[in-house]
Formats: sequence, structure tokens, C-alpha cells
Amino acid sequence: MNSLNFTAESSSNGMVERDFTVGGVPGVLWSPASGTAERAPLVLMGHGGGAHKKHPAMTGRATLLVHGFGFHVAVLDAPGHGDRPRGADDERDIAALRKAQAAGEPVGPIVVPYNARLAESAVGEWRAALDALQELPEIGADGPVGYFGIALGTALGIPLVAAEPRIRAAVFGLHWPDALTEYARRITVPVEFALQWDDELIPREDSLALFDAFASQEKTLHANAGKHFDFPRFEADSAARFLARHLGH
Amino acid sequence: MNSLNFTAESSSNGMVERDFTVGGVPGVLWSPASGTAERAPLVLMGHGGGAHKKHPAMTGRATLLVHGFGFHVAVLDAPGHGDRPRGADDERDIAALRKAQAAGEPVGPIVVPYNARLAESAVGEWRAALDALQELPEIGADGPVGYFGIALGTALGIPLVAAEPRIRAAVFGLHWPDALTEYARRITVPVEFALQWDDELIPREDSLALFDAFASQEKTLHANAGKHFDFPRFEADSAARFLARHLGH
Repeated sequence: MNSLNFTAESSSNGMVERDFTVGGVPGVLWSPASGTAERAPLVLMGHGGGAHKKHPAMTGRATLLVHGFGFHVAVLDAPGHGDRPRGADDERDIAALRKAQAAGEPVGPIVVPYNARLAESAVGEWRAALDALQELPEIGADGPVGYFGIALGTALGIPLVAAEPRIRAAVFGLHWPDALTEYARRITVPVEFALQWDDELIPREDSLALFDAFASQEKTLHANAGKHFDFPRFEADSAARFLARHLGH
Repeated sequence: MNSLNFTAESSSNGMVERDFTVGGVPGVLWSPASGTAERAPLVLMGHGGGAHKKHPAMTGRATLLVHGFGFHVAVLDAPGHGDRPRGADDERDIAALRKAQAAGEPVGPIVVPYNARLAESAVGEWRAALDALQELPEIGADGPVGYFGIALGTALGIPLVAAEPRIRAAVFGLHWPDALTEYARRITVPVEFALQWDDELIPREDSLALFDAFASQEKTLHANAGKHFDFPRFEADSAARFLARHLGH
């Protein structure tokens, strides 16, 4: 088993930030500065496409979870993102995406297989990272674990949560159902799922079908007026409360 | 103009409860016990069908709004509900409803016209009550006003909010679109709208169509797994936060 290899530590505003690698994959762990005396739940967060582990959306959500609820929050760079090298496949998919965007063509036929390919590596990377994170005394092997990831974070997160019984609640949103429906059907933990009602990239019916597929007895859809990139910031507050309700603390 | 005629006052657990009538319609006003020194926003709440102004759902939601945010909360008995007499029309509609329920037949064709008939009286009653409530110094004529009503509270509330420019944000849910879509198209204030994903009474497509009809630039749909009467209690917390975000305080 790979252990966490801590490479940097800093602290500001009541939050400790520790960079790490695990099995060569770079990640970050944010924790309450008040320390490691008491175990606290862990939230795994997946970043969006083209972003990285310390994107402002990640630090903002981590702040909500660490300050608001005393949780630990971990993010890994997705394959080909952040501090990780891009392969030829990545370059090819990104070039195709830029071309479709420039031509005003649908991006789903490119994003769906691109992200599904990333999920093939990312699920194992996340599970190994979770093994290593649970070795830390302030997290522990049997503590509650949640997942929060939108867009690419959902494309990687739905297969992860389907495979990983340690994850007890998850927040997803903003992705196509094509490569994810079968995984969603295996998920039974509480889910909060967000879509944009006027999404110009993902057809509304497709998003509703993906929400419908979750086998969870408790699942909540949050649909907000607006286009794909209008995803409102108050959904992060809602996600934090949802995770707190299910992970306790 | 009718003034509020206060008929009883009690206080418990940090909340003052004042019964009143306005133009002969009985209502209740809950306020922070800390008093009337400072103006605070007002939330009008509509109760569900067969319920009344002091139904536990009303007192529970009022507690969230008064304790959590220092708001004033007013509820009127709907026509034919609570302390108000039932007319022959009410008896006829309720008998038809019981018969359909007993036979396992769809209730929409009865509830929709029944509730639309109640709205014809209730909208004017609510507007007169709002006039009178705004005469109170602790509420005031230009303070923020919100609305929160599910089921019958939505059947009365959507026509009310469409007619009433003083209401700045509203929470609705769990009703058929038939008599409400035209009113929803006139509503432009922020709306939070709840439906039950597995509602056995209201077809999912009908609920989605009603949400779609609101002209509001900010609107959020909350769809929860479960049947009609499984409407989860955490939606009241969400509604209170939504109203606090838009009414301030």
C-alpha cells in the first residue's frame, strides 16, 4: 500500500494545507488548524475539467467544509490536470474539444469519452489515496467519508462512489448520462445532484435521466435557472450542509 | 382599510404568538420575543389542504424563521379551513375528494378546481392582511416580504405572488400546473420550488412544467426521492435559508 508523502505544509486563516503525493499522484489535504486531536469526517473533492486541485472553486468549498463543519478535505489532480503531465490522448481530446467549442458544435460527444477515459485511472487513484488518508490518526479507518464533485468531478466521482463502499454520501452534477448511468444505478447512498435548467451543453432530459438512475433512497435534485457556467455559488453551501447532515460532526 | 384585530397573545420559547382577525379572517402572527424595537422582514405562510394556521407544519416553519432569522411570520386560515366555516361548495368538493381517494382515483381533477376556487377569495384576503400587517411598526410599509406555502399553500400563493409586488421571494411546491401556469408566468421574483420525484398524485412532468413556467431569473427546483407525503423536513430548513438570503436580516 502507498502511504501519503507530504511535500509541503502551510497554514492560514484557521486552515492547514498539506500537499502530498500518493503513488505519484499529487493531492492536497485541508484540515482544521485546531488540529489532529479529534477525528473528523473526510470529504473527497473532484475538480472540474481544465482545473486543478487548488482551483478557487476547490479552496472555496474546502473553506466551507473545514471552517463550517471541522471536516478534512482532500483533492487529487485528475489525470492530465494540474501538476500531472498530459499524454498524447489528453492532447488529442483537448484539441478536439477546443475545435468543437470554436465551431459551436456539441461538446458532449467529446467530453463524455474523454472523461470516461480519465475515470478509468482516477477511480483506482482515489481508492489508493483513501487508503492512505485513512492511515492518518486524525481521519482513521472507520470514519465517515463523503464525495463532492461537479462536471469532471462527477464523471470521476460517480464510478468512484459506485465502487467504494466507504463513501457514505455524495454531491454530483453537470454531466451527461451516457457513460455514467450504469454506475449511478449501483449507488445507494444519499445523493444531492445539481443541474442547470437552461444548460446549453447538457440537454435537460439527459440530466433528469441521470438523476433518475441513482438507486439511492434519499436523493435530491437541485435545478437552477441559468446556463451551464451560471452554476450558483449557493449550491456549495447546500452541498456542505448536505454532507454535514450525512457525515455528522 | 381593515386593521388587525388582536384577539389573543401568548409567549413561549422566545416567540410571541398573536391571534388576530382581519376583515373577519382569522390569522396568527409569530414574532421574536425580543420585541418590536427593530423592524424585521415578514414571511406570509400558506397552510396545506385540510390543515389550518396553527398546524404543526406551520408552527415548525415559523420557529425556524423566527428563531433562526428574527423574522415575523403570519398565517391565515384558508377559506373553509381552521376556524372558518365550510360552505356548501366546500362540503361538495371535500366529499368528492374523499370519494376519489377511497376509490383510488386521481385527485387532481378535484383538487385543482377546488383550490382554484379558494384562491379567488384568498388572494384578496391575503392582500388586505398584508396591508394591515404593514401598519404594525415592527413590520412597516416598506420592509421585505416573502411567501412560503406548499400544496394548497402553493395554489393560493402563486396567484397571490403574481398579484402582489410587495412579495420579493417565494417558496412553493407540490401542486398541479393546470390552474397555476398562467400566474407562474407573471412571477419574476426569486422562487424555490419543491416536488416529489415519485409523487403518486402529481405527474412528474406536470410539476416540471409548472417550475418551467416561472419567469424568475433566479429559480431553483428541489426534487426529492419519495412519494407525495414523504416531503422531507429538511426542505423547510432550505426554504428558511432561501428566504433569509433574499429578505436579508
